[in-house]
Formats: sequence, C-alpha cells, structure tokens
Amino acid sequence: MNLVAFTGFAWVFGVVGLVIAGLIYNYVKSQPSGNEVMIDLGNQIHDGAMAFLRREYSVLAVFVVVVAVLLHLAIGMATAGAYIFGAVTSVLAGFFGMKAATRANVRTSAAANQEGQGKALRVAFFGGAVMGLAVAALGLVGIGSLYYFLGAAALPSELPGFAETVSGFAMGASSIALFARVGGGIYTKAADVGADLVGKIEAGIPEDDPRNPATIADNVGDNVGDVAGMGADIFESYVGSIVATVAIGASLGAATAAAAVALPILTVMVGLIASLIGIGFMKLLERTDPANALRNVTFVAAGLFLVVMWFVVQGMGIQIANPITGVPYPVYGPWAAIVAGTLVGIFIGLVTEYYTSAGPVKKIAEASETGSATNIISGLAVGMESTAIPMILICVAIAVAFSFSGLYGIGIAAVGMLATVGVTMSVDAYGPVADNAGGISEMAGLGPETRKITDSLDAIGNTTAAIGKGFAIGSAALTALALFSAYASKVGLQETGIDLVNPYTVIGLFLGGMLPFFVAALTMTAVGRAAAGMVEEVRRQFREIPGLMEGTAKPDSARCVDISTAAALKEMVLPGLVAVTSPVVVGYFLGVEALGGLLAGATVTGVLMALFMANAGGAWDNAKKYIEGGAHGGKGSEPHKAAVVGDTVGDPFKDTSGPSLNILIKLMSVVALVLAPWFVRVHENADADVLSAVMTMVRSLIG
Amino acid sequence: MNLVAFTGFAWVFGVVGLVIAGLIYNYVKSQPSGNEVMIDLGNQIHDGAMAFLRREYSVLAVFVVVVAVLLHLAIGMATAGAYIFGAVTSVLAGFFGMKAATRANVRTSAAANQEGQGKALRVAFFGGAVMGLAVAALGLVGIGSLYYFLGAAALPSELPGFAETVSGFAMGASSIALFARVGGGIYTKAADVGADLVGKIEAGIPEDDPRNPATIADNVGDNVGDVAGMGADIFESYVGSIVATVAIGASLGAATAAAAVALPILTVMVGLIASLIGIGFMKLLERTDPANALRNVTFVAAGLFLVVMWFVVQGMGIQIANPITGVPYPVYGPWAAIVAGTLVGIFIGLVTEYYTSAGPVKKIAEASETGSATNIISGLAVGMESTAIPMILICVAIAVAFSFSGLYGIGIAAVGMLATVGVTMSVDAYGPVADNAGGISEMAGLGPETRKITDSLDAIGNTTAAIGKGFAIGSAALTALALFSAYASKVGLQETGIDLVNPYTVIGLFLGGMLPFFVAALTMTAVGRAAAGMVEEVRRQFREIPGLMEGTAKPDSARCVDISTAAALKEMVLPGLVAVTSPVVVGYFLGVEALGGLLAGATVTGVLMALFMANAGGAWDNAKKYIEGGAHGGKGSEPHKAAVVGDTVGDPFKDTSGPSLNILIKLMSVVALVLAPWFVRVHENADADVLSAVMTMVRSLIG
Repeated sequence: MNLVAFTGFAWVFGVVGLVIAGLIYNYVKSQPSGNEVMIDLGNQIHDGAMAFLRREYSVLAVFVVVVAVLLHLAIGMATAGAYIFGAVTSVLAGFFGMKAATRANVRTSAAANQEGQGKALRVAFFGGAVMGLAVAALGLVGIGSLYYFLGAAALPSELPGFAETVSGFAMGASSIALFARVGGGIYTKAADVGADLVGKIEAGIPEDDPRNPATIADNVGDNVGDVAGMGADIFESYVGSIVATVAIGASLGAATAAAAVALPILTVMVGLIASLIGIGFMKLLERTDPANALRNVTFVAAGLFLVVMWFVVQGMGIQIANPITGVPYPVYGPWAAIVAGTLVGIFIGLVTEYYTSAGPVKKIAEASETGSATNIISGLAVGMESTAIPMILICVAIAVAFSFSGLYGIGIAAVGMLATVGVTMSVDAYGPVADNAGGISEMAGLGPETRKITDSLDAIGNTTAAIGKGFAIGSAALTALALFSAYASKVGLQETGIDLVNPYTVIGLFLGGMLPFFVAALTMTAVGRAAAGMVEEVRRQFREIPGLMEGTAKPDSARCVDISTAAALKEMVLPGLVAVTSPVVVGYFLGVEALGGLLAGATVTGVLMALFMANAGGAWDNAKKYIEGGAHGGKGSEPHKAAVVGDTVGDPFKDTSGPSLNILIKLMSVVALVLAPWFVRVHENADADVLSAVMTMVRSLIG
Repeated sequence: MNLVAFTGFAWVFGVVGLVIAGLIYNYVKSQPSGNEVMIDLGNQIHDGAMAFLRREYSVLAVFVVVVAVLLHLAIGMATAGAYIFGAVTSVLAGFFGMKAATRANVRTSAAANQEGQGKALRVAFFGGAVMGLAVAALGLVGIGSLYYFLGAAALPSELPGFAETVSGFAMGASSIALFARVGGGIYTKAADVGADLVGKIEAGIPEDDPRNPATIADNVGDNVGDVAGMGADIFESYVGSIVATVAIGASLGAATAAAAVALPILTVMVGLIASLIGIGFMKLLERTDPANALRNVTFVAAGLFLVVMWFVVQGMGIQIANPITGVPYPVYGPWAAIVAGTLVGIFIGLVTEYYTSAGPVKKIAEASETGSATNIISGLAVGMESTAIPMILICVAIAVAFSFSGLYGIGIAAVGMLATVGVTMSVDAYGPVADNAGGISEMAGLGPETRKITDSLDAIGNTTAAIGKGFAIGSAALTALALFSAYASKVGLQETGIDLVNPYTVIGLFLGGMLPFFVAALTMTAVGRAAAGMVEEVRRQFREIPGLMEGTAKPDSARCVDISTAAALKEMVLPGLVAVTSPVVVGYFLGVEALGGLLAGATVTGVLMALFMANAGGAWDNAKKYIEGGAHGGKGSEPHKAAVVGDTVGDPFKDTSGPSLNILIKLMSVVALVLAPWFVRVHENADADVLSAVMTMVRSLIG
C-alpha cells in the first residue's frame, strides 16, 4: 500500500489515540484522591468547571446553529455540516481535557502527600496528557474521517471538494476556540482578581484560604482558562494548519495534489505516534528532575518525529515547481520546512522563557525600587522589546519554508510546528493541574512536606506555561499565514497577487491592524467589569455570613462560580462578534483584495500585541515572585507593593487579552477562507462593491 | 501668466512669509519682559534651549555630512546637495521657532501681569506664529527654489529630475526631525520626571518652585520637545507630503505631469496666504474667549483655503485616468481629495480631544478609586480603544481621495491636510509658550491675578496640544502612505504591484510591524535612564548646596540643563540608526517588494502605537488633573496617588515614544523613496538578493 492510501486510515489513528487517552484517564481516576476535605474540594472545582462548560456550550450551540444555517445558504450543505462537526469536536476536546484535569488535581495532591514527588509528577502529567492526546486524536478523527468518507483518499477528483469542505471543519473549531479563550480568560481573571483583592489585600488572609468564597472560582478559573482555553486555541492551530496546507496542496495541479493533500495528514499521524512514545517516556523519567523530565519527553517526541518525517517526505516524492522561475523545489523540501517550523516553535518558547525569567525580570524588579510607575514603564518596555526576536524567527521560518517548498512550505511548516501537539499540549495542561494541586493542598491544610512538592511542581508549571504561551502565539502566526495563503489561492489572487499599492488593500490593512487593539481594549475592560462584580460578592459574603472569618461557617463558593460564569458568558459576545463579522463585512463591501489586506494587518498587529501582552504579563508576574523570594526587601516592602501593581496589570494582559488575539487572527483567516467562494460570487461584477457604488453616487451628486 | 508658470514664484512666497515671520518676531521681542527676576528666568530658559539646539545640531552635522557623502555615491550629487539643503532648512525652522518661543514666554507673563488676558494671548500666539510661519515659509523657500532653479517650472523635461532631487530635500528634513523628536522627547521627560520626583514628591515643594534645580531644565524641555520637536515633525510631514505628490505627479505622463507637479506647490502657497490671514484675525479675536479665538483663526484659514482651492483646482484642469478602468477622474477630483484630507485632519484632532478630555478620562479617574493597577489597566484600554475611529477616518480619507483622483489623490489629500500648517502650527506652538509663561509667573512670584490668566492660557494649551498631537499622527499617516505610493511608482511596482502573497513582502511586513514596538521600547527605556541621572543630580544639589531649601542660595540650574542635554543626545543615536538603516538593510538584502512590505508594516503599527501612546498618555494626564480639580477626593487622596502613577507612565508615552513613531514611519518611507534607484540597480539581477544566495547555498549543501 502506498503512503497516500495509507493516509486514508488517519481516522483509525485518531480513534486509537482516543482510546489511549481514555485508558490514561481511567488510570488517573483510579488513583486515590485523599481525605474527605480534599475529595470535597476536588468535587467543587470539578463541578464548577463542568457547570461553566455546560453553560458556555449551550450559549455556543445557538451561535453554531445560526452560523451553520448561514453557511448552508452562502456556501452549501457539506461545509455547514463540516462546520458543526468541527465545533462539536472542539467541544469534546475541551470536555475530555477538563474532566481529566479536574480529576487529576486532587489526585496529584494526594500522591504528593502519600507517595512523593515522582508519583505526583506522573499523575499531574498524565492528567494533562488526556487533554494533549484528545486534541491530537480528535483532530485526526475529524479531518481523517472527512478525508476518508468524502473519498479524497482514493479519488483525486474529490480533492478540491474535500479541501473546501474541510475548511468548514476548521471554522467550527475556530468558533469554539474564540469563545473558549475569551470567555475562559475573562472567567479566570475575574475570579483571580476578586479572590486576591478582597481576600489577600482587604481581609489579609493567604491565597487559597478555604474561608475565601472566591477561592474555588479561582481554581476553576485555572482550568477554564489554561486547560479548556489553551486546548481550544492549540486545537484550532492544529486543525487550521492542516486545512490550510490541504487547500494549498489541492491547488497544486493533478500530478502532485494527491500527495500534497495527504502529507499534512500523514505528518500529524506521525506526530501522534511520536507524542504517544514521548508521553510513555515519562514513566522512565519521573524520578529525574521534574523540569528536565518535562523537557525531555518533548525532545524525545520531536526528535523521533523529525527522523521519521525525513523518510515519509522522501517516500511521498512531492515535486513542486517555483511559480516564478519554474525550477522545481527539492523533493526533501517539505521536510526542511517542517524542521524550520519545529525549531522556530521551540526557539520562540525559549525566547519567551528568557523575557519572563532572566535579565528582563530583574530589571523590572529593580525599577520597582522607585515605585509602581517605573515598574509599569519597565514592564511595558520589556513587553515591547520582546516582540523583536520572535518576529524575526517567524520571518526566518517563512523564508526557509518558502525557499524549500514555496507557499506549500509555509503551510507544512505550521503543521510541523504543531504535529507533536500530543506531547506539547500535555506539558501545557500539566501546569494548571499542578497549580490546582497546590491550591488543594493549601485549602486542605496538608503538611509542609506535601506543600513543598506541590509548590515545586507548580513553579515548573509557571515556566512551562510561559513557553506554552510563546508556542501558542508562534503557531497561531504561522497558521494564520498559511490560512492567508490558502485564502489567496482560493479567491484566485495567487496569480494576480494582493496588491499593496491598491488603496483598498491598504484600507483593509489599516482596519485589520486596528482590530487587535480594539479587541484587546474590549477584553481588558470586560475583565475590569467582571472582577468588580466578584469583588462586591466576596465583600458581601464576608460581611453577611456570620462566622466566615473565624472559620466556623462555610462560604457560598457556588455563588462566586456562578458570577464568574455569567460575567464571562456575557462579556465574550461582543469581542466574538467583532472577530467573526469583520472579515464578512470587509469582504462583502470592499472586496477580496481589501479582505486580504485585513487579514495581513490583523495578523501582524495581532501577533505583535499577543507577544507584547503575554511577555509583559509574564515578566511582571515573575518580577513580583522574584521580589517575594527576598530581593529588594522581599514581601511587604515598598518595591513589592509596586511589583504587585505590575502583576495586577499583567493578569488580563497575559491571561485574557493576549491569548484572545491568537484566536482572533486565525478565526478571521479561516472565515475568509471558508467564505471565499461567496465573496468571489458577490464581486464577479468588478464594480459591485458597495463602496464603489456609494462613491459613484457621491460623484454624480457633486459633478 | 498661467497657474503652472505662477508656481515658479513659490520661493518668493516663501521669502515673503519669512519676512512676515521676522516682523512678528520683532514685534514680540519689542514687548516688555517684566522685572529683573523675570528677565533673568527668561534668559536662563532661552540660553538653555539655544545651548541644547547648538549641541544637537553639531552632533547632527556629522551625521548629515556622512549621509550626504553616501547619498552622493549611491544616487548622485544633486540629491546629496538637496539632502543637505533640507537638513539646513529644518534646522533653521527649529532655530527661528525656538528663538521666538523662548522670547515670547516671559513677555506673555509680563503682558498678563500688566495688560491683561487679551494682550497675553496675543503675545503667546504671535510667539507661536513665528514657528508656524517659519515652517510653512521655509518649506516653500526650499521646495520652491529647487522647482524654479532646476528648471522644472518652465521645462517639462526637467520634471522627473526635479522629483528625484526634491526627495533628497525631504530626506534631509526627515533626518533632522527624527533626532529633534527623539532627542527633544527624551530631554523634556528626563527634566520633567527629575523635577517632579525629587521636587514635588521628595522635597515637597510646588511645581516650578525656583529652589528646584531642575525647574529651568523642565521649562527648557517644554520648548525643546513641544516647539522644536513638534515643529520638525510637522515640517517633515509638510515637505514629505509635497514631495510624495510631486513624485506621483511626475510619473503621470506628459499631458498632465506639469500641472500635477505644480498643484501641491500651489496648494501650499494658497495655504500660506490663508494662514497669514488667519493669524491676522487674532488681533480681532483676542478679546473673545481664548479657546474660541484659537479655534476660529484655524477655521478662518481652513475655510478660505478650501474656497480658493476650488478655483485653483478647476483652473489647473488636471485630467487623470483610473489606471484600471481607464475612465478619467473628474477635474475637480484633487479638490475633493484636499477637502477629505483637511476634514479628516480636523476630525482626528476632535477624536483625540474626546479621548483625552470627556468620558474616557472620567472612567480612568473612577478606576483610580481601586488603586494604581486599575488606573493603568483603564488607561491602557482607553488608549487602545482610541485607535479605532482615527484609523477608520484615515481609511475614509484614502477611499475618498482615491475614488476622486487615484494615487495622486492620496498625496494631494495629505498636502491639503498640511497646507494651512502656518496657522495650525502657530496654535500648537502657543501651548508651550503659555506653559512657560505660567512657570515664569510662578517662579517670579507674580500675583494671583496674573497666575489666573497664565493658568487659564496654559489649560487651553493642554487641549490644543492634544489636538495637535492627533493632527500630527494623522498627517504622518497620510504622508507616509503618500510616500509609500511614490516609492511604489518609483521602483516600477505601481504596475506589477507589491504582492502580499509573496512571502518576501510578508517578511517585510512582519519586520516593519515590529519596528515601532522596538523603537518605542528603546525610547521608553532611554527616558528611564536619563531621568535617573537627573534625579541623582537634583538630590545631590539639595544635599550639598547649603541654604538651597531655605531659599538663600541659588540652585545650579545650568548643570541640570547640561545633564538633560547630554542624556538626550546620547540616547537619540540608537533609535535614530534603527530608523535610518532598517529600510536600507531590507531593501538591499531582501529586495524592493520586501521593502514595500516593511514600509506598510511600519506605517500600520507606527500609526496605531502613536495613537495608543499619545491618547493613553493624554487621558492619564487629564484624569490626574480631573481628580486634582476635586473629584474622587481631590489632591492628596488615594485615588490621586493612583492617578499620579498613571500620569507618570503616560509621560514618556505621549511626549517621547509616541511622537517618535510619527517620524519613524515618514523617515523610513522617504529613505526608501530616495534610495529607490539604487535598490533597483542592485536587484536588476533577480537572484542578487543575499537571502536567495544563502538559501541556494544551504540547499546545495543538503541536497
């Protein structure tokens, strides 16, 4: 059997991956979950998280159905169906991941209490691995089954139809991702700020104190934001990069199209196997230093993946010609692009780690000596500066990928960056599990030995979270670029180009560039409003529940969970609508070139703002922790107070507004790609765009 | 005589404008300058400002000579000569303006003391008018004399040569502008922060107290930043917009080129006359409400200008055809573009005023109730949100200008926005004069009656400054776009387009988008470093000069002026080099399309970041003033302290980093335009770019 036919079994790989994820989930669930207090806390967090997901998904169901109907009218039944399929798949990935993470947290705490660090690390990591594998496997099930059942695996004539339909799947995943990221981001920060501001500052009780009514909501928030939000984000990149490469591959002409469409799917199949092996290595590595263990499972998977891909790419023998010179790119070209994507993904993570841990953090801590204003200025400057190297790295990835495989190279580079998502996402999801385990140990009053283990696992989680955020932005950038290229070839602009000298393109570029600033402003204001509601509720409970401060009465945690949930669902609507409707409006009224400009503008400033906000936020957070470690007078000193201000500003930066922008740029691109046939139809008559019509009318009135 | 031949006398208009500026300067200088203390203070500010200019210009002289030699080698003698001419002209504009402003400040204070508000307003405004007229007139002298003496006025065959040479003039103006803006911005904020931090906060003495050693430097800074820096910025836009329109006009083909090249020059001739009439109206309006008087002189000039231009444009009878459809644009098309440019310039100013005065400011003040973190978050959100409407307005200007006159329309719209610079810049430069007058009244201990007048004039200056900043950004955006179009037509990309699907363009776009973030980070850090030096010096003087606090000894103000000067000159070098070299490096190594992408990317994020930083800074400043006016507990309350933090963060935002970005985007575009012939020569062999060569090498190593 040749490799293209073998790709038809992608969905089987996906199902196997899901089964393994299920086995890991059962293993995690079979672990002891500690004493009664712990079980109760774990259940509260689990129930709160699941309640949020249920309510979020029921809001989204309405949205998905409405969009599906519109898609059916504009494009067709198949795309609408694939859209619903993509949305449901993304929901399932979030659901499985959350279930596992909220079971693993209390069990990690129990393992740390009873069996020591190695076991605790394993439970936390396996808790995260369910999310990682669910993302990778569900992507394969979705795209693989469309590939197989639409007949694209066997009949080359079905490739264009498959490429069009599968873009609907990506749009479904994107829609869920946007709301999961924005809603999750608002939820987690409203709870966090509410818990900190009243609990730590006003009432003077420690973080994660059981008397604080918002503590449960805060721990739920970690899961809602960092597990479900991050998972939906990466799932979107994963699916988006494959779909973009499929679309570019399908347009390459009969001789290569079949192999070029199969390669991205085959790449993630190899990536899934490599991830499974990497995850398995954790059992060998769990007794070594946890930070190294987490790093090494990733490296094992990435190394294996790259070696196998060399043979796969050679076996596929894809021949693409340079569209300008006609000279063919080398056969191993896609592999070079995959290497570039994989390495740049790792390097961006390392740059993020540098800016959120080393010299820059000390500079911010030092600036805190002269007060909060200099702390803020210094953090903003660090965030802005930190955009430079990642942007250059992305440019290097583009240059290498393009020189070796043309536009197709950019798509496959993005796929390469994301193929081992099974393991990278596991490491990412480990973070909030460890964070929760620390919170539960504190709330349940476990001994200092246990706290030491969970604290150290949590600290590593902060580093993996910073790297994960960098990786998420880098992969979003490459995915958006790949989707942009796919859009261009879909609307027939690959030959004529999207001309930057055309003022319509410039208008699109300016409007697109503005959107990330606007959405960031919206989400930052939303967090402020939601947090204010939480602050009021926590104050009310301390005031009205007798015996709460003394520890004789229980807080009404469920009410706080409720407030965060309601606020997040309400506040996610406006930014979500801006993201979905802007490409539709620009594409309809200003045409396909303006829409190309819009995507390019949004991608550039979206990536820049995401890097700026994530890194500034991470650096402020760690500058505070650095001072709390004893530098510049330590906890309670004036510099510490200044650093707390920076950290508070950084919270919505790094956990709400910044991450939302990753989704914004991908969603806009995928909406453009899906609606491309419709825009082309609308603008078949060159003067049909409304702007031209209005201008003609104005001119006839004056002249 | 026809209108084109009449345009040959542009330089005469310029000379007449200069003579009138000289007469106004003499009038200002002939006013009484108060008692001995005031005369002494005035002289100290004047001498400090002039000393800064002299030292700045001697550093720049070296830079200008080096660049001129390189330009001579790459392009030719004429361009190099025009470059030096442009630089000298910009220096002269700054010099005249500063001389007048630093003479007018003490005389405004004296007029307020002895003759009341009307006279004080007149002196301050006429002090600013010297700068306004110098900018407008020197631009006309420079471009007009090149137009006349290169023979372009009479011989159509000389038009392309004139268009090429005059771009060197614009690059000269841009070079000076960059260093004036960056250096001036660093100077003014180092002095301001130093004076405030030690004087107001540590020593507890009021602002502008004569005992504070940094007070003189602070007042010098107002002139250095807001007069010389702003003047050089607007001069650059003014010259750049004309040069871009000339370049586009010269490429339009023999039938229309002569008129199309003449029109922008004729437009600014009309603008100069309209400005002179507007300025003259001040004598009639000075007894009315000062804010209205300042607004009305602008409206008189703008109204007159637009009416006259209707006839001028009709008289020129320029016929431009739509390059795609071949349908000719209407003859009055350029007038419609001019109207669009003028109106959008005014509207952007009004939007800026809204965001820095009305609802948003109250929201920030309210957020200060919960501390400095929420004040900062709220201010950042306001700044980000404030980018939306101005960006849409710029898009409207582009759309209207293009529908009525094609690319030429975008150039002439920018010229229209800037043509009445004589009066708008007068209003701008009035601000720092009034600000200084307030400082002198305080330091000289003048009575409460006088202080009330100078304070109210100063308060109006804050509003005009906010509007002026919005206008500066808007005009920079349109000018950069016009220069971008001129660059595209110069390198022959107007026909083939700058293709956004080409990854080289995308790489340029990403790198260009990143530069404003990087330069903003550099300048913010520079202010921090420079301010730290100033803080130390002021502390040292309070410690070591016996009797300083008691008022029996005089501070060593000259030493503070020196420190600010040295720091500004040192810190302006790196951002300056980044701005000048980045288009050269990208154009040389990655080619002309990548350079087009670089310019587009830098323009988009440059405009966004400039709007964000200027408006956030202005809003924080006014939120603090609003609280000081008694809201939320007034001066000394907790919300006030939070608002002071926001104001301190906003200082480098609005006065250093934000304004520097205006220049960055224009300078990069003009460097690209001037070096266009060189880049074309370098890349005549399509594979000559170094990146391709490296890639070919890497591929041959692997394959």
